[in-house]
Amino acid sequence: MIELTPFLNKKLNIPLYIQLYQYIKKEIEVGGIPSGTILPSIRYLSRHLHVSKNTVENAYQQLTAEGYTESRPRSGIKVLPLEKPLLPLRQLEGAIGLDSSRNGEKPAAAYDFKYGDIDLDHFPFKAWKRCLQEVLESGEPGVFMYGEYKGDQGLRIELSKYLFQARGVRCSPEQIVICSGTQHAIGLLCQLLSFRGRRVAAENPGYDGVRSVFLNHGYTVKPIGLEADGIDLSQLAESGAKLAYVTPSHQFPYGMVLPIQKRLKLLEWAHLNGAYIIEDDYDSEFRYQGQPIPSLKALDTKESVIYLGTFSKSFLPSVRMSYIVLPAVLSDRFREKLGRYSQSSSPILQRAMYLFMKEGHFERHIRKMKKVYQEKHKTLISAIDKHFGNRVEIVGQKAGLHIVIKVNHHADDFINKAEQHGVKVYPVANFWMNRDDSPQKAVMIGFGGLSEKEIEEGIKRLHKAWHEC
Amino acid sequence: MIELTPFLNKKLNIPLYIQLYQYIKKEIEVGGIPSGTILPSIRYLSRHLHVSKNTVENAYQQLTAEGYTESRPRSGIKVLPLEKPLLPLRQLEGAIGLDSSRNGEKPAAAYDFKYGDIDLDHFPFKAWKRCLQEVLESGEPGVFMYGEYKGDQGLRIELSKYLFQARGVRCSPEQIVICSGTQHAIGLLCQLLSFRGRRVAAENPGYDGVRSVFLNHGYTVKPIGLEADGIDLSQLAESGAKLAYVTPSHQFPYGMVLPIQKRLKLLEWAHLNGAYIIEDDYDSEFRYQGQPIPSLKALDTKESVIYLGTFSKSFLPSVRMSYIVLPAVLSDRFREKLGRYSQSSSPILQRAMYLFMKEGHFERHIRKMKKVYQEKHKTLISAIDKHFGNRVEIVGQKAGLHIVIKVNHHADDFINKAEQHGVKVYPVANFWMNRDDSPQKAVMIGFGGLSEKEIEEGIKRLHKAWHEC
Repeated sequence: MIELTPFLNKKLNIPLYIQLYQYIKKEIEVGGIPSGTILPSIRYLSRHLHVSKNTVENAYQQLTAEGYTESRPRSGIKVLPLEKPLLPLRQLEGAIGLDSSRNGEKPAAAYDFKYGDIDLDHFPFKAWKRCLQEVLESGEPGVFMYGEYKGDQGLRIELSKYLFQARGVRCSPEQIVICSGTQHAIGLLCQLLSFRGRRVAAENPGYDGVRSVFLNHGYTVKPIGLEADGIDLSQLAESGAKLAYVTPSHQFPYGMVLPIQKRLKLLEWAHLNGAYIIEDDYDSEFRYQGQPIPSLKALDTKESVIYLGTFSKSFLPSVRMSYIVLPAVLSDRFREKLGRYSQSSSPILQRAMYLFMKEGHFERHIRKMKKVYQEKHKTLISAIDKHFGNRVEIVGQKAGLHIVIKVNHHADDFINKAEQHGVKVYPVANFWMNRDDSPQKAVMIGFGGLSEKEIEEGIKRLHKAWHEC
Repeated sequence: MIELTPFLNKKLNIPLYIQLYQYIKKEIEVGGIPSGTILPSIRYLSRHLHVSKNTVENAYQQLTAEGYTESRPRSGIKVLPLEKPLLPLRQLEGAIGLDSSRNGEKPAAAYDFKYGDIDLDHFPFKAWKRCLQEVLESGEPGVFMYGEYKGDQGLRIELSKYLFQARGVRCSPEQIVICSGTQHAIGLLCQLLSFRGRRVAAENPGYDGVRSVFLNHGYTVKPIGLEADGIDLSQLAESGAKLAYVTPSHQFPYGMVLPIQKRLKLLEWAHLNGAYIIEDDYDSEFRYQGQPIPSLKALDTKESVIYLGTFSKSFLPSVRMSYIVLPAVLSDRFREKLGRYSQSSSPILQRAMYLFMKEGHFERHIRKMKKVYQEKHKTLISAIDKHFGNRVEIVGQKAGLHIVIKVNHHADDFINKAEQHGVKVYPVANFWMNRDDSPQKAVMIGFGGLSEKEIEEGIKRLHKAWHEC
């Protein structure tokens, strides 16, 4: 068997699997590893190099994707002759780690303040695995077919209880539609509501991921500015819109919580104009300051609010599960227009989530995560205080899994410099309808996925980077 | 503890859990079961009544959903006072089993020839569970977050190999986008291709589920009639469309296989008109007669074909996983327009499917299922021959998991009569753009989910029903 002896440097910013891949690729190119060679097994090489199996596997996948090697079931990874790469070169760009998509697995910086990452250290893997196991063992044929178009009935019953108790939302399971993510939910709503004219008012800045769904469905998006306490209601009134998309519990990305008076006015606007409000309650579970304010939907006496929630923040992004609560009056229209759509969230995972909720795990999990994130949030805020003092301004710190800080450097420079220190923070420009309107000096800091220690060290390094700007 | 002694009749067409639910509900209403009573545990009652735990659980869920009872963690199901039902009555309609959606778990007829059901008796549960288990054990953080927007890289590599080998489709993993079902894929394509004008030509009859997605995205659907060997190319040429949705491997619902000459002409039409063809290859794995014909995509030298495949027929509907193969030229546009969308299929299931394919299970599974479905198909055809002789005409018997039969009774009467004999067969009228154009005397018979014995008995009963019409 061939011996591979790359020098893998864990301190470099380049992920180990890329280093390993580059090493093997070069060896193949210069003839150090001749064609026909069977590469060491993943298990062997990972032990030999003291790296994870994933690292080796990803490197091998990359080589195979680029045609340097070929994977043969039960006989291993074989090096191919150089003159016939198996796959077009284009692919190189798209291959693992070189793909720069937002949701792609990016080369990991040591301290990645990525919004969307969540805490896995306290995740109840055992209970969740047991629920999944139980579903697979149950053999209920229903779990293996398409499932109900609105989603698992049991899960919808559990959700209706949870929403009432946690968010004051009163709805029947019949009004709930399970979706596979908020963007998917918005896509369905775009189709459902097109009879009102394809026009929507949305907070600016706001979540660009949702804005792009509206635009891709041919909607005109009317940007509505923010005041210090949230959406500017006079701008909304002037917009003439009959549909508004808002994030009242934790404005995205600025994080303000819409006060109760403004909530009531927002509802009044909807009533007076016969408008619908889409309330995206994406991370309402996590509040750190102030009194809890009921959701907009809880205050909605005239069926004007379409409520959106997700399991991505409160549970796991990778279950790809979210939900819409439709006003009863839209429920029939939904069935008429979209009732022939197959449910797109897996019935296997839905059923497991149903068990997870029914057995009380979900409630316990949320209770625990509230504390965990509160601690992380506190650590983050005090680390920033400690290192930056009042030289940065923190925005939107009452809730959620991210904050925005305003710095006195241009965001791009700051972000680049931070990356050299092994820290990733993120630009906010995309959240503005017109990027030119965005503040040049703000960055977004997500903290869900980092430990308190990592948060402290990350902010320390961030401060160094800030000094060097 | 209270003793429940309902008479549950397995011969009735009413599912047992509905019978049980109705019994308990009535007892509560008439005071036979006073408020405050704790109902027997699911385990106890299922043993006591000799029914499955599911039956009891579903009945209890229904009661709770309607506010007759309340589920209390660890203390059981408690009967509530009648005067305050917990949830609005509307819900009754939507509750389990009373929801008449296509994808809902319908009250099971003894012999349900439902299209979309698949064989579970030969499903490799063990290998699949092991793959899932491995993913959950692996602890790779990537598996718990959003995942890459196009889907798991490893899965896309496996798919590109599979598609080349099984369907002659040459593509790089970069051209593949994982979706959660064919309708979801079509939704994305509607958004991607809107720059060509919202107009699509589609076979008529054709899959109504896809047609509704086009219509809901504001597309005009131009119906193209069929000839004996598939889509009418002269009608297509006259349509002026720049986009066509077709099912060449197994026309849905009629089942003809588009001959090679017609495939080449169809591609020529696309080249000459600068049009795109969406090829839905939904059940191409299962062919029973004639030479395999390469997919349209395999013959496509000019990047005109957008290929769609699904795991719903070849694997399990409930993984909710399908895929698009984009022409390279559309790949960039996809990234630009839809690159900010989160992947909607669960990374957990995608990764498990990757392992399942990589370890060779998928290939073996397909090989086995080809035989299993071939046998079922043979049984179905000979049962129809035996009982009906030449009094019905069988359409589209070369491939797939369903056939259409033309009978000499009105479909609705026949379907109703069949149901009285415990057999479900399905109308085809929905597949026509205009239901009035549909043949009044055809029904659809799916056979994937029934055993050979059930197929034989089902057809025998169907014949009885036919006689009584």
